[in-house]
Amino acid sequence: MSISANNPDRTSWLHVGKNSDFPIQNIPFGVFLTRDDIITIGTRIGDTAIDLGALHQLGYFEGIPLTDDIFLQDTLNDFIADGRKTWRAVRNRIADIFDSNNTALKNNLKHKEIVCFRLDEIEMQLPVQVGDYTDFYSSLEHATNVGTMFRGADNALMPNWLHIPVGYHGRSSSIIPSGIPVHRPQGQTLPDGATEPVFGPSKLIDFELEMAFITTDANDLGESIPVNEAEEYIFGLVLFNDWSARDIQKWEYVPLGPFLAKSFASSMSPWIVTLDALEPFKVESPKPIKPLLPYLKSKGKKGYDISLEVAIRPKDAKETIVSKSNFKYMYWNMSQQLAHHTINGCPINSGDMMGSGTISGPTEDSYGSMLELTWRGEKPLKMKDGTERKFINDYDTVIMRGHCEKDGTRIGFGEVSTQLLPIYNQKKK
Amino acid sequence: MSISANNPDRTSWLHVGKNSDFPIQNIPFGVFLTRDDIITIGTRIGDTAIDLGALHQLGYFEGIPLTDDIFLQDTLNDFIADGRKTWRAVRNRIADIFDSNNTALKNNLKHKEIVCFRLDEIEMQLPVQVGDYTDFYSSLEHATNVGTMFRGADNALMPNWLHIPVGYHGRSSSIIPSGIPVHRPQGQTLPDGATEPVFGPSKLIDFELEMAFITTDANDLGESIPVNEAEEYIFGLVLFNDWSARDIQKWEYVPLGPFLAKSFASSMSPWIVTLDALEPFKVESPKPIKPLLPYLKSKGKKGYDISLEVAIRPKDAKETIVSKSNFKYMYWNMSQQLAHHTINGCPINSGDMMGSGTISGPTEDSYGSMLELTWRGEKPLKMKDGTERKFINDYDTVIMRGHCEKDGTRIGFGEVSTQLLPIYNQKKK
Repeated sequence: MSISANNPDRTSWLHVGKNSDFPIQNIPFGVFLTRDDIITIGTRIGDTAIDLGALHQLGYFEGIPLTDDIFLQDTLNDFIADGRKTWRAVRNRIADIFDSNNTALKNNLKHKEIVCFRLDEIEMQLPVQVGDYTDFYSSLEHATNVGTMFRGADNALMPNWLHIPVGYHGRSSSIIPSGIPVHRPQGQTLPDGATEPVFGPSKLIDFELEMAFITTDANDLGESIPVNEAEEYIFGLVLFNDWSARDIQKWEYVPLGPFLAKSFASSMSPWIVTLDALEPFKVESPKPIKPLLPYLKSKGKKGYDISLEVAIRPKDAKETIVSKSNFKYMYWNMSQQLAHHTINGCPINSGDMMGSGTISGPTEDSYGSMLELTWRGEKPLKMKDGTERKFINDYDTVIMRGHCEKDGTRIGFGEVSTQLLPIYNQKKK
Repeated sequence: MSISANNPDRTSWLHVGKNSDFPIQNIPFGVFLTRDDIITIGTRIGDTAIDLGALHQLGYFEGIPLTDDIFLQDTLNDFIADGRKTWRAVRNRIADIFDSNNTALKNNLKHKEIVCFRLDEIEMQLPVQVGDYTDFYSSLEHATNVGTMFRGADNALMPNWLHIPVGYHGRSSSIIPSGIPVHRPQGQTLPDGATEPVFGPSKLIDFELEMAFITTDANDLGESIPVNEAEEYIFGLVLFNDWSARDIQKWEYVPLGPFLAKSFASSMSPWIVTLDALEPFKVESPKPIKPLLPYLKSKGKKGYDISLEVAIRPKDAKETIVSKSNFKYMYWNMSQQLAHHTINGCPINSGDMMGSGTISGPTEDSYGSMLELTWRGEKPLKMKDGTERKFINDYDTVIMRGHCEKDGTRIGFGEVSTQLLPIYNQKKK
């Protein structure tokens, strides 16, 4: 089945601004609360949010095998479980409905009023109920930078790193959509030179610039996903800020890995951009430095050229861009991550989420965390308002953006924007 | 509200064998498929399974605020979310209905036929949809044994271990109920003396004797659970076999912790025994060796005296008991684990699961894994059939059992029994 929604010559009868992340070639999926306080699954073209539940009830998806309530849900999990053939049919149909040459909905004022919303009329929700969340560690530059800081340049990469897309299980319950603020976490840390830990607010709050992909039901217990079939099971991608408390992490992470340093919050952009929409932006992954075991050998272009940036906006001030990176720098691609994750027979379900790990590029201004950008705080970053940052301050908002661009078509992710608040004021219950 | 179900003088009109784990003082909760292929929530007295969905429809829970379909579900998550007051009211009512002195149901043959099942008429299911699964590492003896093997006796315990109930996030999707077989996983390992990893079936499959507790909705993002309120949010406990592939673990676990070495399967016993039922068996936790930070200081008895055993049953042979341990050995108790888990504001939801970590006792025959029992394979265990085991062989069944006993009352967990099968036969799709 062709991806006719990707046709670069298409235009929509809905207004799409010149630098919009959401032309008719994008058609991402999300969940929102409408002005009538109804939860629905939707998409977005330009600055118009589109209620897919209403569109389906009005018969616009006729001919596509969909259950009646597939879009009248508070998560995308069931739709994602329907599989790629269905996602593609729905996406192509949406492109047809909103194509400049199609006047059916365009000229039906009553239908349009039910289906189309301004962005200020809706409230984006978490698009999936994340069953399991896995975070990888797949940027060579990030692993090298962090390894150099903690163990010196000679031992920067662990012996397994070039053989395994190293990853670990993360916490699903604290994944939040863009716009929800996060409180500075408290916890145990070991001050420099001390032998006993102390308790208090983390002093080293950091972001991690990541992307995350969302899967469909893929395999039974025991079964593995072959590396070159893996993309069949990937629904789409979001921007992902894997908040980190570096001082808590340093004290707790041996020997079982990061725990509370990460589980206080991870923020995601609310529109899931499908792998189909990203198809034109595929690129080769970096060449493997060491030979790979056969189950990790991916063929063809499995990387994606997605420009990324991170900005910090201090309270009542303008934002400063602090990093510009790209998803194409990932040493291990998503296909390799999914093949590795299932090589032991671990089941992957609809709505599972897999983070890339911090995406650092080769240059100092392309690093994906404050830890690396300020080199453990040794080189503070200057903000436009004259202040400096070693890590993230209370009331700072961290904003991540991402988009692809090629031959005049721009497909983007919007942003994930999260404000850091002071520690939570614990009330007596 | 008193826990009248715990009255040790109660007897049931249902037959309960002398050494049954399920007297009328237990009343665990589970989910099963009935002879009519209907999924329902149930309990068990002696060798009788009781359909709570049917009991509720027949009006036996009148006066307790319950939604009509609370027991007609395929998981306990919603019932658990109702909170402790409701669990207790239901448990007390069940004890009343089946009390020897109550003839209402006993004498209603028609109702009894609808409500009561023989064990061979039902099939136990996973009792909860596990949102997030966390595994702790809370046995001092286990951490010391493993640390001694990997780093020598002088560095056995990591500096953080006596200050933090160390834990990590596990994989929910591969948690299975007792009775479902597990395939030997494949993966990467680094053979002794080699510099490059190889791919193949794990050669060192191990069990880990654990218990796991299941929580209710406890806190919002940002909020922490005080250590001495933590038990209010714990629904109950199960036996838990955290299957491990030691050779995969050794190669992959640095620096982010265990991943594929654990995520191929974890098995749980199907009946959740409530904390209420375990109340009479509370004991003091071991005295802290180092002073604790205030948020981890638990008051009173927060440990539980639960005798545990592990047996290995080779194919077509009798089982051999290979370990006898006790849950009371846990250095960190569940209240401390939950307080620590939420000190950073991480939300805990209904159906979340927290494993204790391997429960090893002080003597060599009380260790909770083959790794420790055979000391890395150096001291193989003799089976009754004359064979030896360093780790688990294909077709072996590993069985874990647990029970409390005091003043003539025995409350037990039944068992978690899982057979290890050879590697999965991957079919071409």
